[in-house]
Amino acid sequence: MSAPPSLPTAAVWSDLLDTALREDIGTGDVTSQLTIPADQLATAQIEARSDLVYCGWEVAREVFIRVDSSLECHCVPREGERVSGGSVLAKIHGNLRSILAAERTALNFLGRLCGVATHTRRFVDAIAGTSAKIVDTRKTIPGWRELDKYATAMGGAINHRIGLFDAILLKDNHIAAIGDVAAAVKTARERAPKHLWLQAEVESQADAVAAAEAGADSILLDNLPPDAMREIAQRLGARLVIEASGGIDLDNVRAVAETGVHRISIGALTHSAPVADVALEICDGGVAA
Amino acid sequence: MSAPPSLPTAAVWSDLLDTALREDIGTGDVTSQLTIPADQLATAQIEARSDLVYCGWEVAREVFIRVDSSLECHCVPREGERVSGGSVLAKIHGNLRSILAAERTALNFLGRLCGVATHTRRFVDAIAGTSAKIVDTRKTIPGWRELDKYATAMGGAINHRIGLFDAILLKDNHIAAIGDVAAAVKTARERAPKHLWLQAEVESQADAVAAAEAGADSILLDNLPPDAMREIAQRLGARLVIEASGGIDLDNVRAVAETGVHRISIGALTHSAPVADVALEICDGGVAA
Amino acid sequence: MSAPPSLPTAAVWSDLLDTALREDIGTGDVTSQLTIPADQLATAQIEARSDLVYCGWEVAREVFIRVDSSLECHCVPREGERVSGGSVLAKIHGNLRSILAAERTALNFLGRLCGVATHTRRFVDAIAGTSAKIVDTRKTIPGWRELDKYATAMGGAINHRIGLFDAILLKDNHIAAIGDVAAAVKTARERAPKHLWLQAEVESQADAVAAAEAGADSILLDNLPPDAMREIAQRLGARLVIEASGGIDLDNVRAVAETGVHRISIGALTHSAPVADVALEICDGGVAA
Amino acid sequence: MSAPPSLPTAAVWSDLLDTALREDIGTGDVTSQLTIPADQLATAQIEARSDLVYCGWEVAREVFIRVDSSLECHCVPREGERVSGGSVLAKIHGNLRSILAAERTALNFLGRLCGVATHTRRFVDAIAGTSAKIVDTRKTIPGWRELDKYATAMGGAINHRIGLFDAILLKDNHIAAIGDVAAAVKTARERAPKHLWLQAEVESQADAVAAAEAGADSILLDNLPPDAMREIAQRLGARLVIEASGGIDLDNVRAVAETGVHRISIGALTHSAPVADVALEICDGGVAA
Amino acid sequence: MSAPPSLPTAAVWSDLLDTALREDIGTGDVTSQLTIPADQLATAQIEARSDLVYCGWEVAREVFIRVDSSLECHCVPREGERVSGGSVLAKIHGNLRSILAAERTALNFLGRLCGVATHTRRFVDAIAGTSAKIVDTRKTIPGWRELDKYATAMGGAINHRIGLFDAILLKDNHIAAIGDVAAAVKTARERAPKHLWLQAEVESQADAVAAAEAGADSILLDNLPPDAMREIAQRLGARLVIEASGGIDLDNVRAVAETGVHRISIGALTHSAPVADVALEICDGGVAA
Amino acid sequence: MSAPPSLPTAAVWSDLLDTALREDIGTGDVTSQLTIPADQLATAQIEARSDLVYCGWEVAREVFIRVDSSLECHCVPREGERVSGGSVLAKIHGNLRSILAAERTALNFLGRLCGVATHTRRFVDAIAGTSAKIVDTRKTIPGWRELDKYATAMGGAINHRIGLFDAILLKDNHIAAIGDVAAAVKTARERAPKHLWLQAEVESQADAVAAAEAGADSILLDNLPPDAMREIAQRLGARLVIEASGGIDLDNVRAVAETGVHRISIGALTHSAPVADVALEICDGGVAA
Repeated sequence: MSAPPSLPTAAVWSDLLDTALREDIGTGDVTSQLTIPADQLATAQIEARSDLVYCGWEVAREVFIRVDSSLECHCVPREGERVSGGSVLAKIHGNLRSILAAERTALNFLGRLCGVATHTRRFVDAIAGTSAKIVDTRKTIPGWRELDKYATAMGGAINHRIGLFDAILLKDNHIAAIGDVAAAVKTARERAPKHLWLQAEVESQADAVAAAEAGADSILLDNLPPDAMREIAQRLGARLVIEASGGIDLDNVRAVAETGVHRISIGALTHSAPVADVALEICDGGVAA
Repeated sequence: MSAPPSLPTAAVWSDLLDTALREDIGTGDVTSQLTIPADQLATAQIEARSDLVYCGWEVAREVFIRVDSSLECHCVPREGERVSGGSVLAKIHGNLRSILAAERTALNFLGRLCGVATHTRRFVDAIAGTSAKIVDTRKTIPGWRELDKYATAMGGAINHRIGLFDAILLKDNHIAAIGDVAAAVKTARERAPKHLWLQAEVESQADAVAAAEAGADSILLDNLPPDAMREIAQRLGARLVIEASGGIDLDNVRAVAETGVHRISIGALTHSAPVADVALEICDGGVAA
Repeated sequence: MSAPPSLPTAAVWSDLLDTALREDIGTGDVTSQLTIPADQLATAQIEARSDLVYCGWEVAREVFIRVDSSLECHCVPREGERVSGGSVLAKIHGNLRSILAAERTALNFLGRLCGVATHTRRFVDAIAGTSAKIVDTRKTIPGWRELDKYATAMGGAINHRIGLFDAILLKDNHIAAIGDVAAAVKTARERAPKHLWLQAEVESQADAVAAAEAGADSILLDNLPPDAMREIAQRLGARLVIEASGGIDLDNVRAVAETGVHRISIGALTHSAPVADVALEICDGGVAA
Repeated sequence: MSAPPSLPTAAVWSDLLDTALREDIGTGDVTSQLTIPADQLATAQIEARSDLVYCGWEVAREVFIRVDSSLECHCVPREGERVSGGSVLAKIHGNLRSILAAERTALNFLGRLCGVATHTRRFVDAIAGTSAKIVDTRKTIPGWRELDKYATAMGGAINHRIGLFDAILLKDNHIAAIGDVAAAVKTARERAPKHLWLQAEVESQADAVAAAEAGADSILLDNLPPDAMREIAQRLGARLVIEASGGIDLDNVRAVAETGVHRISIGALTHSAPVADVALEICDGGVAA
Repeated sequence: MSAPPSLPTAAVWSDLLDTALREDIGTGDVTSQLTIPADQLATAQIEARSDLVYCGWEVAREVFIRVDSSLECHCVPREGERVSGGSVLAKIHGNLRSILAAERTALNFLGRLCGVATHTRRFVDAIAGTSAKIVDTRKTIPGWRELDKYATAMGGAINHRIGLFDAILLKDNHIAAIGDVAAAVKTARERAPKHLWLQAEVESQADAVAAAEAGADSILLDNLPPDAMREIAQRLGARLVIEASGGIDLDNVRAVAETGVHRISIGALTHSAPVADVALEICDGGVAA
Repeated sequence: MSAPPSLPTAAVWSDLLDTALREDIGTGDVTSQLTIPADQLATAQIEARSDLVYCGWEVAREVFIRVDSSLECHCVPREGERVSGGSVLAKIHGNLRSILAAERTALNFLGRLCGVATHTRRFVDAIAGTSAKIVDTRKTIPGWRELDKYATAMGGAINHRIGLFDAILLKDNHIAAIGDVAAAVKTARERAPKHLWLQAEVESQADAVAAAEAGADSILLDNLPPDAMREIAQRLGARLVIEASGGIDLDNVRAVAETGVHRISIGALTHSAPVADVALEICDGGVAA
């Protein structure tokens, strides 16, 4: 996609940022107050300690600015760029106490956002060359839905529905409440506005066909064996979007992609992404004159 | 510890919970509205899909109660208990639409909290029989400081300082601002209230000795080789608390513990804990009469 | 739709409710404090003063409960039911000062929500017998997106996209940025995830055809004359969803519906809905013994 | 009034503004991300599509600034000025994605605030030349008390009491709790601080006289016929402030004003004001180079 | 006043209460977790350690309930009652950890509210028998306007204007902007709605007369000597409300009251009230079986 | 301490500041709107009316800036400096309506923060020359924990534990739950992480010795007579930190300090600090041309 996603404006995650600063700074940074002169200036740089997809600079920058609006912050790579371990990610210049007060909060945001983008990219890379796409899920950290979905997009995934409100996903309980998958899809299709994407979870090829014939936009194959996925993809792939999910990891994701499914949804992008290793170094000014 | 930690009262994490419900439910659960009768009752159970340390039930329960205060929620294991994959964790009875609206948010909280507790327990177990303790860090998810630290405690770790405000940790920049580690510890000791724990980061045995002699309560050994740790632990272990950190994982944590250090701090407990696999099943009532 | 929409849980609109109580009650209801004994009990009823679609009872009820959790509140009609002027909508029993403190805030919520539902129903009724559907827009009162969209749904409309995030709507500026409508639709189709509804605004039949051929799910006809709408509907109505918007009111909405368009979006449902006339009467207990 | 009201500072309505941006932008503006280059600049203007009283520019401006603090925003008419349909209201220059992300939220605020001011002005104009004044009520949109009352003031109305806390209004239930209107006014007068405005609702000339003699500052005539209003105004108009309310619309407001009452309170100013028709046009830069 | 003020509903001060619990409890009460069994029950009582006016029980009770909704809380004296040191104010029964977690926050609220009410009562008592009334000011603790004004009312004072919005107070700068006090009062009177109380600050008898003749409802005598107050009170006391302020303490307040002024406003009621000495004792159950 | 404490960043107290402005300004400053031209400029200065320790300028400045970001604000003394009555504390230049709208809120913050710092300094001065230190408590105004503790630090006190979470304080109930003070200290010592400061409240010399021998870091002597304090200090002062509390005021604090205790904790620093007398004067521009 030549036009990459934009981070939603700070108003969207403003409360989270204030909460994060409050929980870390509280009554103040006692260590710096004991050791750093109040007017000491310094230059810091944020570095990648391992390869990562850069993501979340605007959030990290806002952390520094809210702590001290006189800090000068410059970003080095482009947002979304892959960078190697050892690269400089950003530079911050200004009051040293302010930089140290903001450091951990800024790194916690950046580490998580780069971590999600980087972990997503691993899955995207693993299926390179296939026609499948990686999609995220609603398994985000509570309070982080917008930021987590931004990070998966920066990692190259497609955002699935945002919440319960913006698409229909008929799961086993909804289907059971109506009777069978064909009836459930048909009922939802009739009752729902046409612009709502209608996806049904299916557990067999018969149900997949029934869902397709009843008018689903997509079927979700939950934990099906690869052969079953392939058969369904061959039979129905031209008629509706086929999404695989369940038990998919970096070891088997390519095999799933090669079955011909269109989308592979992976909760681990957000629920189990390891942090990206980012650190802040004072490169000048840390030593009192 | 015979008296386990208590979860802080809901007032502490109330805003986070409302935010989480708002971001998932938004204008409403369209799928359930299309398929589930408004007065359908059901019984659900939350199950562990893998072995885990149970943690966060009161938070998950509050999610269900805020969605619908008439839901009846019962917990099965004790908070903090180890449970096997396949175990039932909780039962919820009441309006099916309400259960489904709360499901993902409740599971996202529970999966994260059990995930952190379980990952912590892995480290605690790995050093069983040694005298070392696992401690957490400030590398928590922004907005989650209280909940993340509760989960590490339930997993058997000790909570390190909560934020910048409740203990002194002299790192390289603070030391550089004063001159050397001995001077920095001495200065901080003189200026700081006595009740504040004073820890200094050191990179050599000489600095470790200097910090001890200047009156530090603890030294933090960052990324030292095991032999260096062992020597320092033997020489200073009776005088102050020795904490190891940096580059420690499940493979090498026992070796570190066996050097004789007292505490091992591990950011991964909170910044890279994989989610615990928990799921909700409708066991009765999902089928309309 | 046999299964009507559910109001999102109170956690979604909790802050708005507290704000509303704070702005009306502030330092307290001086009039009641001067005249009503602190322990005076009463029974009140909320009445419709004109015909309306009942909507928002759970919100109004929560207002009473937050003011005084001992108030007993009973709803009379079903949510979404049409009621005649003069009907009783709800009964509240308990402390009279509490009832009077909550009265205006509860009525302001109820009047707005019934007002939006009732105004929506006027449009829905006006096109009864045609195959068109009324849809709402993002022209909601700031802070009220979820509640306003719930009210339009209760009035019989279909919810359009919730915000900028859950569907694609290519307007003139987006089209201009790419070149022409065909290129814009094609570009968006290729770059966007398949589950996102893709609608393009068009101003001529030629553009409508181009959008359809490029793969749009829907076209938005903005301010086109009825004859143009009819021609487009006849030509493309079987291929994609045709939505009319712009300058449509109760006088001309039926004519628009009869052109064969599938959906008619109307900002006035939420931006200009007159309040529903609801009032609270003390029916018993207002007179001190 | 030569010195017009000031809009309360942004701190007063800051949460409402953030909420509004969050509910519209959520995880981001997918359409712009798919079509508009991230660094595309443009100039936009906000236009009046019908005659209106201009109101709320500072709120709309703050929306643009919170989305992107580098946007340059210029207001064209004075706040409170009447402008004709077709007039330019404001110009915004800067990043096109930012302008489009803020557009709907800014217009929703502006449309509501101009709408309330404009609707108020219709009533003020309708009674021009009489000595009566239009006053607003507490029938505001929940969450909007300060903004709604600012808009009525900009439309030429007088702000009635803000909430339950800043004036006494004895209604039927308060009067019934004491016994009769004379006793209620007398009781409240004795018990209340002198600086609190004391108004009593009356339903007959006899009660009006009784209220006046008991020391009310004002009487509220609820739904009285014009002749009764006139008689009361003639008899008591020099002694206390007479306010008419109930069932007053643009058709009959002048007749009410001509009875000699001093104030006419109208809930419709805020509970049923139609939106003002304002729109944003990209006038330059919308076409990619 | 036979009908005492009601505390505004919890929705008004709900955020303050959650903030207070969060700042005290944070990651949890480590002491109790180390020593008190998780299921230990106890009965506690809150006691007055000195004479006080009881005020704020509903707030304190809500603190206990939010910490643990199963706590049983009973109030002993009536709200607003004078109690002697040693009296029992309330009893709480339930989980001991919960009681101890809530203790300090509950006492901080209660100590402040009783403190303000008690300090106010000292001034009210000091002028007993005169016709003057004590009034409060806007000099409240930021964030506490509603609660502080409730406490002064419970102490027997009259609430002055709540904020800048609900009454006119012409001070030196406003008067200077117009020219002189007569012109300022006249201008404000003409421009302002009649229901707004209009008070002017004056510094001489000449200005007092001018303000009265121009139509002020009240004059504020700032730091005038008692003789000047007496002369003004004699001359104008029957025509408008005379308020004294500035430099008034418990030693001289009676002398001021005896000059014949109607009201005496005292910032110290809220800006310098000493805390009331209240404490919580565990009377049963504190000893583990 | 050569490096004085820093005020935590505005993100920590941002909500409190917005709440304070909302509660004072509400729907707007009616007096200024009636009398001050909308574009009138002025210069104001904030003055000390009595001797005080200057504290809180950054908070007061932020109040002015949030009301009107074009105001120019300059601080005169250094933060923490002692200033004499009559001194100028700050200058503000800009729109007069804005200055007057912010005045009371800014002064309420400044008066409280200077008041706490000044009251603290009185105690610090009273024990000058002794080796004791003044420490604060958790008896802060709810919502003000961070700001109150900053002000006591600026007044020369040492911050005690912030809340229940960052130190262990064994009081009578905790001790009773375990059995006796020696057992309680021993139990807590064993179970607690070593970095947590462990303080025990004792009521006799025997208990003091027992606590010391069991490994407490500190003992809290609650309401002991000076002689008992002196004996304990002599016996145990070299082994652990001895803190006195209870019933200590400016009259007896020096006598307590001279007993040899190390710390004296005083709730009155925050629960009963009289406001500092600060005022704002318009020195130029208040008179219209």
